[in-house]
Amino acid sequence: MSLKKVAVIMGSDSDWPVVKGCCAQLKAYGIPFEARVMSAHRTPAEAAAFAKSAADEGFGVLIAAAGMAAHLAGALAANTTLPVIGIPVKGGAMDGLDALLATVQMPTGIPVATVAINGAKNAAVLAAQMLALSDERIAGLLKQARSAMQREIEAKNAKIRAEADAL
Amino acid sequence: MSLKKVAVIMGSDSDWPVVKGCCAQLKAYGIPFEARVMSAHRTPAEAAAFAKSAADEGFGVLIAAAGMAAHLAGALAANTTLPVIGIPVKGGAMDGLDALLATVQMPTGIPVATVAINGAKNAAVLAAQMLALSDERIAGLLKQARSAMQREIEAKNAKIRAEADAL
Amino acid sequence: MSLKKVAVIMGSDSDWPVVKGCCAQLKAYGIPFEARVMSAHRTPAEAAAFAKSAADEGFGVLIAAAGMAAHLAGALAANTTLPVIGIPVKGGAMDGLDALLATVQMPTGIPVATVAINGAKNAAVLAAQMLALSDERIAGLLKQARSAMQREIEAKNAKIRAEADAL
Amino acid sequence: MSLKKVAVIMGSDSDWPVVKGCCAQLKAYGIPFEARVMSAHRTPAEAAAFAKSAADEGFGVLIAAAGMAAHLAGALAANTTLPVIGIPVKGGAMDGLDALLATVQMPTGIPVATVAINGAKNAAVLAAQMLALSDERIAGLLKQARSAMQREIEAKNAKIRAEADAL
Amino acid sequence: MSLKKVAVIMGSDSDWPVVKGCCAQLKAYGIPFEARVMSAHRTPAEAAAFAKSAADEGFGVLIAAAGMAAHLAGALAANTTLPVIGIPVKGGAMDGLDALLATVQMPTGIPVATVAINGAKNAAVLAAQMLALSDERIAGLLKQARSAMQREIEAKNAKIRAEADAL
Amino acid sequence: MSLKKVAVIMGSDSDWPVVKGCCAQLKAYGIPFEARVMSAHRTPAEAAAFAKSAADEGFGVLIAAAGMAAHLAGALAANTTLPVIGIPVKGGAMDGLDALLATVQMPTGIPVATVAINGAKNAAVLAAQMLALSDERIAGLLKQARSAMQREIEAKNAKIRAEADAL
Amino acid sequence: MSLKKVAVIMGSDSDWPVVKGCCAQLKAYGIPFEARVMSAHRTPAEAAAFAKSAADEGFGVLIAAAGMAAHLAGALAANTTLPVIGIPVKGGAMDGLDALLATVQMPTGIPVATVAINGAKNAAVLAAQMLALSDERIAGLLKQARSAMQREIEAKNAKIRAEADAL
Amino acid sequence: MSLKKVAVIMGSDSDWPVVKGCCAQLKAYGIPFEARVMSAHRTPAEAAAFAKSAADEGFGVLIAAAGMAAHLAGALAANTTLPVIGIPVKGGAMDGLDALLATVQMPTGIPVATVAINGAKNAAVLAAQMLALSDERIAGLLKQARSAMQREIEAKNAKIRAEADAL
Repeated sequence: MSLKKVAVIMGSDSDWPVVKGCCAQLKAYGIPFEARVMSAHRTPAEAAAFAKSAADEGFGVLIAAAGMAAHLAGALAANTTLPVIGIPVKGGAMDGLDALLATVQMPTGIPVATVAINGAKNAAVLAAQMLALSDERIAGLLKQARSAMQREIEAKNAKIRAEADAL
Repeated sequence: MSLKKVAVIMGSDSDWPVVKGCCAQLKAYGIPFEARVMSAHRTPAEAAAFAKSAADEGFGVLIAAAGMAAHLAGALAANTTLPVIGIPVKGGAMDGLDALLATVQMPTGIPVATVAINGAKNAAVLAAQMLALSDERIAGLLKQARSAMQREIEAKNAKIRAEADAL
Repeated sequence: MSLKKVAVIMGSDSDWPVVKGCCAQLKAYGIPFEARVMSAHRTPAEAAAFAKSAADEGFGVLIAAAGMAAHLAGALAANTTLPVIGIPVKGGAMDGLDALLATVQMPTGIPVATVAINGAKNAAVLAAQMLALSDERIAGLLKQARSAMQREIEAKNAKIRAEADAL
Repeated sequence: MSLKKVAVIMGSDSDWPVVKGCCAQLKAYGIPFEARVMSAHRTPAEAAAFAKSAADEGFGVLIAAAGMAAHLAGALAANTTLPVIGIPVKGGAMDGLDALLATVQMPTGIPVATVAINGAKNAAVLAAQMLALSDERIAGLLKQARSAMQREIEAKNAKIRAEADAL
Repeated sequence: MSLKKVAVIMGSDSDWPVVKGCCAQLKAYGIPFEARVMSAHRTPAEAAAFAKSAADEGFGVLIAAAGMAAHLAGALAANTTLPVIGIPVKGGAMDGLDALLATVQMPTGIPVATVAINGAKNAAVLAAQMLALSDERIAGLLKQARSAMQREIEAKNAKIRAEADAL
Repeated sequence: MSLKKVAVIMGSDSDWPVVKGCCAQLKAYGIPFEARVMSAHRTPAEAAAFAKSAADEGFGVLIAAAGMAAHLAGALAANTTLPVIGIPVKGGAMDGLDALLATVQMPTGIPVATVAINGAKNAAVLAAQMLALSDERIAGLLKQARSAMQREIEAKNAKIRAEADAL
Repeated sequence: MSLKKVAVIMGSDSDWPVVKGCCAQLKAYGIPFEARVMSAHRTPAEAAAFAKSAADEGFGVLIAAAGMAAHLAGALAANTTLPVIGIPVKGGAMDGLDALLATVQMPTGIPVATVAINGAKNAAVLAAQMLALSDERIAGLLKQARSAMQREIEAKNAKIRAEADAL
Repeated sequence: MSLKKVAVIMGSDSDWPVVKGCCAQLKAYGIPFEARVMSAHRTPAEAAAFAKSAADEGFGVLIAAAGMAAHLAGALAANTTLPVIGIPVKGGAMDGLDALLATVQMPTGIPVATVAINGAKNAAVLAAQMLALSDERIAGLLKQARSAMQREIEAKNAKIRAEADAL
């Protein structure tokens, strides 16, 4: 069974600086992905059609990033039974709380797997975790990444201990 | 030119106790309306189709009531250029703030005319105000209602003054 | 029947950088408008008088922008039965939540059609949607604008897909 | 110089259960007061006229209680240079934060002396403190009330110490 | 490949009334699950050990429900690379916002797939969506459930239309 | 009877850039004032002693500005029956909400007359309004200031109308 | 060295139902304590005097519980260098957020060790942890309590697993 | 009995600019400390092991600084009965409220002594207060620091009075 693709949808091209980190992470895992700008409000038919055919097009997970009244993830989730991951994007007001609540507070039956405000890289990690349920290679990469994170923390630890000793 | 209809859409039948006040007010104005349960997440195609054909079906204003990640008003607004009024419904958590932000914080180009949390009757008043722009009868009714409100306040004033004097 | 005018009222000239986008959008639609600085607190009599005579002066919709304890939209709405659109303006503290709540949480009988924090352009779109109920030309412009928005998103989509492929 | 009166204005008769405590406290101080139901939105002209003539009618302080988009205190303050005290009233949603922000976040030049959410009795105390600046009798009463409060706390202290010892 | 199990962990037995809906939904899908009470704070070693061995024990997805400073989902996620779903549970104060933020705002590298406050049933749906990526039977059930939801909405729609017509 | 003084107390010299506007406004009214740095937490005895003797020292109103857990106004109010005005100062986190709530949510019997976050000038206006209850000169100045404000708004109105016409 | 006492101060006797749990826990540890009602605002001199002499009176830790603009813990901390633990008490509005911020957001130099909203029992545990730094008996009790908590969770786990299996 | 050490743990080296103030303060008191980077999510086993052995390694107090879903303090507290002080660190979104709630809202039995958002120096003061319960030298230093603070405020007071007089 070949690996399923991940769709990375953003509501506006202004979300790209945040979303880029998600795509880079997927690429690092060797997970095929497609990035799209598609809006729950400006191109609703395209968004719905994309979600409806996503499974048939070989996608396994959809990631949606949007700010303010962030409906994109929910609009996609309404049109597919694939798992949908939502990234609330911090915008000009309300410090991202608007996007977080609009993404996570979904009604019964249509969940959105919400990550932290601007948590684009974690959306990629979560997508990889889902795909790893049936893909040993990705499962292995995730374990390696954890070990690497630990070593990174340990290196930082050594550096900060030295700085603290020098106070 | 005959009067346009108002559509009153709610995301769940559990919103009906709140929404009922909106319908009753429209009826009191003699404005034709249709009430529907339709969900941005559970019946997205129906909601989109309804909004797309609403103008042709004789609707002039759409009113949408929803709670939590309240996408319904936005989902309708994405599919019509008729004015859409959003009623954020207070739910089990977050005291209605989630529904308010999800309804009002719409992106540029797709406004939702948002009223107060659970402000169902005001949604009807706002719809009437919009229709009254080209309907003298409703414009007259709105002015009468204002006068009636003033008299009501004056009656309450008299009652409270008496209660206060009796302290 | 000639087209009704839109009044664009702001509580302070410091709101002008936000409000300008509203006026520009109305101008783009060819909708006659008048911009005013008028304060619910500093010039309450002028604001009340303006609202009271607005319908007779040929206005069809009032737009009010204000920050903090944003009473301007409500103060106008209290003195007219024309539809009033409120733009909460983000100020120095509370990230705009104060203005949003002060604008939207109106009592029964006196709605304010509230748009997003700093959502000045959407106020113009909403006003146009109201006027379009009895004006075919504006109704047509709104549909064209939607199509243009879709094409704009599609162009952005192409650009971002290329950037993502180049990662 | 005879003592000035206090006006106690509420936006709705539903505020009376909260506001009653304010009137009772004024009565306990022997401060003449008048209670009124008057709305910034439903009877704006009456509210403005009342505030404009309040000084001439013998009022020294205005107290205003309102919930939600609580504009009443601000609307009165806009029409008088007498001190205006605002009581934010907790309503059906947002836990009173809406009323607090709409009352306190006034623009430069037009302050509202805001007390706690539902802090009706404190509004009376604050009014008394203002009047006491030129009234020795009230100044004396306020000092006595403080002493009484201290004795009350001491009595409660004794009771709780006994309960705690009995644990 | 036999179906992986879902672990449903709750921080306290007081969460069971909320969590029960999650278990019932998993059972309805025929997904094997195990429910546990385990605390990030009271039994941290057990929680860590459980998460560490979860993949080897045949679990594919972990679901964690907790309130207040809801660390349980994060504590599990820190010890596994399986996907972890977090259910913020509404508690005695802060209306569930504390649990939501403590669950969703995870650092880079360790995501928690967060669902709505008290959204226990959606956690089950999301887990099913993840497992359905490699299980046709569950994928089919999820599609059937969507269709059933649509019919349910349509039935409610008919009922509400009748109630509205009878106003 | 000679005019009473106003005390302007700030919790830290870092509040001075905000508080300065208050002092300048009092000076403009010709109201005698004294500015002090005094802390509810760092110099509690001084703050209590100051408040206790304030009336005897010729003060009529106390103004207190503080940020974060802003206890200064309350600590002064606890030690005097003079009216105390609180200015919540916006600090490094929580956008000023912490200072607002800590200032305004006072217990029954000990009010603090709270103005807007960073509303230093309004604190001066409010103090002047209190003193004006028994001082005709200040009462007159306040009325003049209102008229000046109106003319200022009218000048701004003219300027913005020109800018809007030039769009 | 004999064990130091813990003072449990509450701002009002209405806090007793919450605070009682704190006293009961201290008693269970065999830690001597004294409970008092004392108010930062109503009996400020008593509160300051108590804190000033607390160390000399044999107290080692002060615990303060208060709601709304919860200044009590801060007022005690300002008058002692003993550690002060603050319990924010949930009141009638703002869901306890006001008390939390007023307790925790202390200025540099005067910390308050803040526990959860209504977290009275944890205040006792924290006090015991502080005293245990120089008291082996209490240190031992705290370890036993942890073990007991673990066994309690394990018992609940068994019960819930049975309930889940019976679904 | 020799003085116990303080552990200063931060979740990320990006917290160091905030945490540095804590270490500098401990150094100023002559309290031995060790600074470490250790993550509740990235190095959970190390964090748990550190906390478990902390008492045996001669630590008396643990201080933990973390942002967002700030679990670090809680994760340490779960593995020791030593007192744990939590510093919520302000991050990119939510203005620090997320970290505050995730740190302070701990369940019964496992308190975290929470200080203000970014209140690193106060964490050191609080640790010193705890250690001072059995260390006369530190107790003396804390009293001296208070006196120094008072003199500092008095110096600032003199400076601001001069600036105010010069207005």
